[in-house]
Amino acid sequence: MYSFKNDYSEGAHPEILNAIVTTNFEQCDGYGKDTYSSKAAEILKQKIKCDNIDIHFLVGGTQTNLTSISAFLRPYEAAISANTGHINTHETGAIEATGHKVISVDVHDGKLTTNHVQSVLDSHTDEHMVKPKLVYISNPTEIGTIYKKEELEALSVFCKEKNLLLFVDGARLGSALTSIENDLDLSDLGRLTDAFYIGGTKNGALFGEALVICNDLLKDDFRFHIKQKGALLAKGRLLGIQFLELFKKDLFFYLANHANDMAYRLDEGIRSLDYSFLIDSPTNQLFPIFPNKIINELSQKYSFMVWAKIDEDHSAIRLVTSWATRQDAVTAFIEDLQSLTTHEIQTLTI
Amino acid sequence: MYSFKNDYSEGAHPEILNAIVTTNFEQCDGYGKDTYSSKAAEILKQKIKCDNIDIHFLVGGTQTNLTSISAFLRPYEAAISANTGHINTHETGAIEATGHKVISVDVHDGKLTTNHVQSVLDSHTDEHMVKPKLVYISNPTEIGTIYKKEELEALSVFCKEKNLLLFVDGARLGSALTSIENDLDLSDLGRLTDAFYIGGTKNGALFGEALVICNDLLKDDFRFHIKQKGALLAKGRLLGIQFLELFKKDLFFYLANHANDMAYRLDEGIRSLDYSFLIDSPTNQLFPIFPNKIINELSQKYSFMVWAKIDEDHSAIRLVTSWATRQDAVTAFIEDLQSLTTHEIQTLTI
Amino acid sequence: MYSFKNDYSEGAHPEILNAIVTTNFEQCDGYGKDTYSSKAAEILKQKIKCDNIDIHFLVGGTQTNLTSISAFLRPYEAAISANTGHINTHETGAIEATGHKVISVDVHDGKLTTNHVQSVLDSHTDEHMVKPKLVYISNPTEIGTIYKKEELEALSVFCKEKNLLLFVDGARLGSALTSIENDLDLSDLGRLTDAFYIGGTKNGALFGEALVICNDLLKDDFRFHIKQKGALLAKGRLLGIQFLELFKKDLFFYLANHANDMAYRLDEGIRSLDYSFLIDSPTNQLFPIFPNKIINELSQKYSFMVWAKIDEDHSAIRLVTSWATRQDAVTAFIEDLQSLTTHEIQTLTI
Amino acid sequence: MYSFKNDYSEGAHPEILNAIVTTNFEQCDGYGKDTYSSKAAEILKQKIKCDNIDIHFLVGGTQTNLTSISAFLRPYEAAISANTGHINTHETGAIEATGHKVISVDVHDGKLTTNHVQSVLDSHTDEHMVKPKLVYISNPTEIGTIYKKEELEALSVFCKEKNLLLFVDGARLGSALTSIENDLDLSDLGRLTDAFYIGGTKNGALFGEALVICNDLLKDDFRFHIKQKGALLAKGRLLGIQFLELFKKDLFFYLANHANDMAYRLDEGIRSLDYSFLIDSPTNQLFPIFPNKIINELSQKYSFMVWAKIDEDHSAIRLVTSWATRQDAVTAFIEDLQSLTTHEIQTLTI
Repeated sequence: MYSFKNDYSEGAHPEILNAIVTTNFEQCDGYGKDTYSSKAAEILKQKIKCDNIDIHFLVGGTQTNLTSISAFLRPYEAAISANTGHINTHETGAIEATGHKVISVDVHDGKLTTNHVQSVLDSHTDEHMVKPKLVYISNPTEIGTIYKKEELEALSVFCKEKNLLLFVDGARLGSALTSIENDLDLSDLGRLTDAFYIGGTKNGALFGEALVICNDLLKDDFRFHIKQKGALLAKGRLLGIQFLELFKKDLFFYLANHANDMAYRLDEGIRSLDYSFLIDSPTNQLFPIFPNKIINELSQKYSFMVWAKIDEDHSAIRLVTSWATRQDAVTAFIEDLQSLTTHEIQTLTI
Repeated sequence: MYSFKNDYSEGAHPEILNAIVTTNFEQCDGYGKDTYSSKAAEILKQKIKCDNIDIHFLVGGTQTNLTSISAFLRPYEAAISANTGHINTHETGAIEATGHKVISVDVHDGKLTTNHVQSVLDSHTDEHMVKPKLVYISNPTEIGTIYKKEELEALSVFCKEKNLLLFVDGARLGSALTSIENDLDLSDLGRLTDAFYIGGTKNGALFGEALVICNDLLKDDFRFHIKQKGALLAKGRLLGIQFLELFKKDLFFYLANHANDMAYRLDEGIRSLDYSFLIDSPTNQLFPIFPNKIINELSQKYSFMVWAKIDEDHSAIRLVTSWATRQDAVTAFIEDLQSLTTHEIQTLTI
Repeated sequence: MYSFKNDYSEGAHPEILNAIVTTNFEQCDGYGKDTYSSKAAEILKQKIKCDNIDIHFLVGGTQTNLTSISAFLRPYEAAISANTGHINTHETGAIEATGHKVISVDVHDGKLTTNHVQSVLDSHTDEHMVKPKLVYISNPTEIGTIYKKEELEALSVFCKEKNLLLFVDGARLGSALTSIENDLDLSDLGRLTDAFYIGGTKNGALFGEALVICNDLLKDDFRFHIKQKGALLAKGRLLGIQFLELFKKDLFFYLANHANDMAYRLDEGIRSLDYSFLIDSPTNQLFPIFPNKIINELSQKYSFMVWAKIDEDHSAIRLVTSWATRQDAVTAFIEDLQSLTTHEIQTLTI
Repeated sequence: MYSFKNDYSEGAHPEILNAIVTTNFEQCDGYGKDTYSSKAAEILKQKIKCDNIDIHFLVGGTQTNLTSISAFLRPYEAAISANTGHINTHETGAIEATGHKVISVDVHDGKLTTNHVQSVLDSHTDEHMVKPKLVYISNPTEIGTIYKKEELEALSVFCKEKNLLLFVDGARLGSALTSIENDLDLSDLGRLTDAFYIGGTKNGALFGEALVICNDLLKDDFRFHIKQKGALLAKGRLLGIQFLELFKKDLFFYLANHANDMAYRLDEGIRSLDYSFLIDSPTNQLFPIFPNKIINELSQKYSFMVWAKIDEDHSAIRLVTSWATRQDAVTAFIEDLQSLTTHEIQTLTI
């Protein structure tokens, strides 16, 4: 059984593990005040090409979302999210648990535009309603699509104009930034957003998200928020060491690129067999539509998530590749699909 | 300037004021432990035809919603509401501020059905999502429609089956129960819901909502919740006295009936001039569609809310009647509308 | 049975009731946007001798505390309170329910000094602890003592120096400001605090607290907070009308003065019989110490709270006077006490 | 510079690291649904000698406290803690941020007794106050003392009788259970508490706390709480693998024993030089009192926390040993202390 179920099935890239092992007996200050964390933050500032940012390392994505968003908002302020947004659907109401409404906007491709945000502003007019304040987007989105520079710039300009905050969930940011369709880099994110984070968990680290706070008004006392949410890791060195490994030599981009490459091979193989997709994704999540019969057969050898029912006989599945996805597994999957497809056609034509 | 803007423009019915004045110098226990509150609760139990219920008097609707719903839910549980639901749109995120997500369902007539609820259950499958637990409906809805007995029974059966709580926001319950289309009574609400409340604020009291808790599991320690939310009125007698007046001789129903009657006269007059409505409402809120020109003219003499843009030249407005609406004001409004309509037609035909 | 149990046993002063009755059928805008509320705010600004303040009318004290304090603090910030502070003991954790720690300081007379606050600052040094931010004091305190101008000035200077907020719970402010020992007036409170409130509930209104926000930084969007906490009264006119009556001709001070006067007569009568007090209070709450036998006898004719056990045979009780306390009841109480005392002495000497 | 500052300065025990490395490329289910977590839970059930318990692995102590306590309490219920309790002082109000008051009780040795708890019950009598519900104790306490079996049994019986929950913070549980004064084992904790946790972070793991829920009423839907608090680790395998290593062969106890052993050597060395201690601790935290001059000298070569000022010339410091403390460092510290002491005496006698 080979898993295409998600991008956190394996542990960490060997170089990261090796760094953890090598430094194991050094005595470090706790709670992120170690030198590895400082160095990792310094390198990230160089990559983002900005010194005037604060960097905090947290353990996971939901944790980073809830800690940041609750820190950035006053009690009556709300976050705006695409209906597919992770905070809206897959965090067990973590944002609401900190007291804030998530205003959901129905979109087709997982992406918010200035029009979407404007429509939310139009319908929130006085103190009887929450005040929309933070625009939450994920790049890539939860369905694999990405924001082009032009789109992010438009959102950024709009948010500044309307006194809104722009926050980017980058749990899979590596996959977005190394996508063939991407034209953004880390410095664009630093320049265009109020805060964003760089996901390690889904790109080769054991765990870890690097939160980047760009807006000066959001920086004060942020460590109090981290501690209060139970998110201040005692052995913070672990986060510093991992991000140092990921960024000291572009391992982060190398790993993300591998994940995308594996996805593109899957994509190509599936298309060559004339299957269609629920949505076109240029990143490491694919949503092909197969006959249920074939899905059943595939599930004997591969694990993946059945994403959506298309009709009585067809469903979309989600295939996720990662830094650790083996090329032979991709090849085997395509061969199996091909053989199942041929068999199906023969069965139908008999 | 006469106001059709809402049903809380005037003070209270004179009999209620009179009771407050008459009892003014009696010394009563505070915080709802007075005899008036006890008597009012007793009478309500008779009206609801159930002894095994707990009754608490609170000051306002948002307060009652947030106190109840946060008391009834565990931290990860969510409320399901129509998109038009008051808790979803007009309470500044009060429910979320207590930590709970409001799951919004798009509906056309303000009403939730079992199908709507089932669709929410279908999309909430594991611990990565909130757990839908409480079905919040308003009767009448925020756009004036009402639930028929059959519909409420269906929801009640469904909720019991699925281990969900059924909660009815009755801020305007009087108007629903005296509507020409209504076939429910207070005992039905006691029998079919886990909790509901009877609105006084919008039906002739200075303020006050009577919360009825029917489900035994929701009763314990409820006064702790009221106090914690700042909702335990020191001079609780004021709530007891008012509900006693409202229910000792059916003043409550008499007042609601008047509000509906005034609405029906408005409705009839408007229809007789061939105007249409955004939605058909059998209660004290009407949503007629007029040309913007006429709306501007009307707004010189009447205050009301412009509810929705229909097209470039037309909008829907909201007209609300109440226990205090004067019949001569209704007549005048219709006459003015007629004259503006005639003028408009003449202008157009010239 | 005559009650000295609290200062909210009766309804409202007749002039207030009369104003509510007289204006009953005027149509007013809801939610505090009526002209009575505006006028009341204007008059209060004159009394406070400051134009640059925001005034909001809320229904009750716990509600005002929780709405204000949660609005003024960021999530990791805490309030400092005397151990006897209302928010610390008698609000069912209302402040904590909004997410904030109340740091309690043990004091003997209910009053916080700069030394107390400094000791809290000394023990809160980094992001592993809450950040003390708001100094909560009550004037009079929960045990009847009051702050002198010198003391409030010292706290005010200290708070500004340390970047702390000074907040005064004035649920019984009238009694403090009309105390024989008082040297503060409303303008001092406006000048020395960041926010305070003027209690109506315990001084002749049906209900109502006037919150005064002095610090510009705390003013923005405050109505959002009020609405979110369920504290925005639909018929806000009721608050405006009441505070207008209380302050248009100094009724507020007249009523508080009466309450104090009744307390002083009680105090004098009790002292003349050689009883001592748990604490000396110059306001409308008294804490005399009596033999339990006498307390039992008194409780046949008067209701009051048994406050604290002193020894096996003695307890302190709490007697509260109010705007409505009748002088004949005070006289009767003293006479009864005298007679019980004489009897007790005779019994003992036999 | 050698650190006695805390017990999380180094990484993890090599066997733990080795297990992480060895299993790195296995594909595992995420979020704690992997086989390592299952196996670790099974082994813990054997050690606790109870099958009817639920085990959840979380990342850190504050996270475990806030997730558990907020899950176990209804909104108006409070936790009782010693004034020195971690939740009361060192978690930035994490419990309050979930809405619950922490009732602090002043104690001298860090330990709560039934008398302490009874005094809290006595002063919390109605719905105007929070309802004390959960007794929070730490074993060892934050100042190194431990609970004897008799004491824990008394608390357990008392809590059951009063319908309270007993919760044990075991962030340093290893050190308590291997203390020379200890007479408790894991099965006692399972038998006597409603929930407790076993700390890995401070006893040789990279991170990780194993929460054990013993009371059936607290078990339902607990994973929803974990997810909502951002505490559900994507690569949950890391927690399973670490606890498997710690408990499959008693490594956990071996490491804790080493920490205690190092502490005892320090303790003995310090006592032999006639220094006294702020409190007697039989675990891995020591609080010796030294002249400030000597503290300054020691701080040139060793890092530690200055804990409390004793008088003008003396302070107590905190020395913490761990699974990784080197015996040569302990020896060196004692030698340095001896030499400084001799020098000091000579200086004084000259």
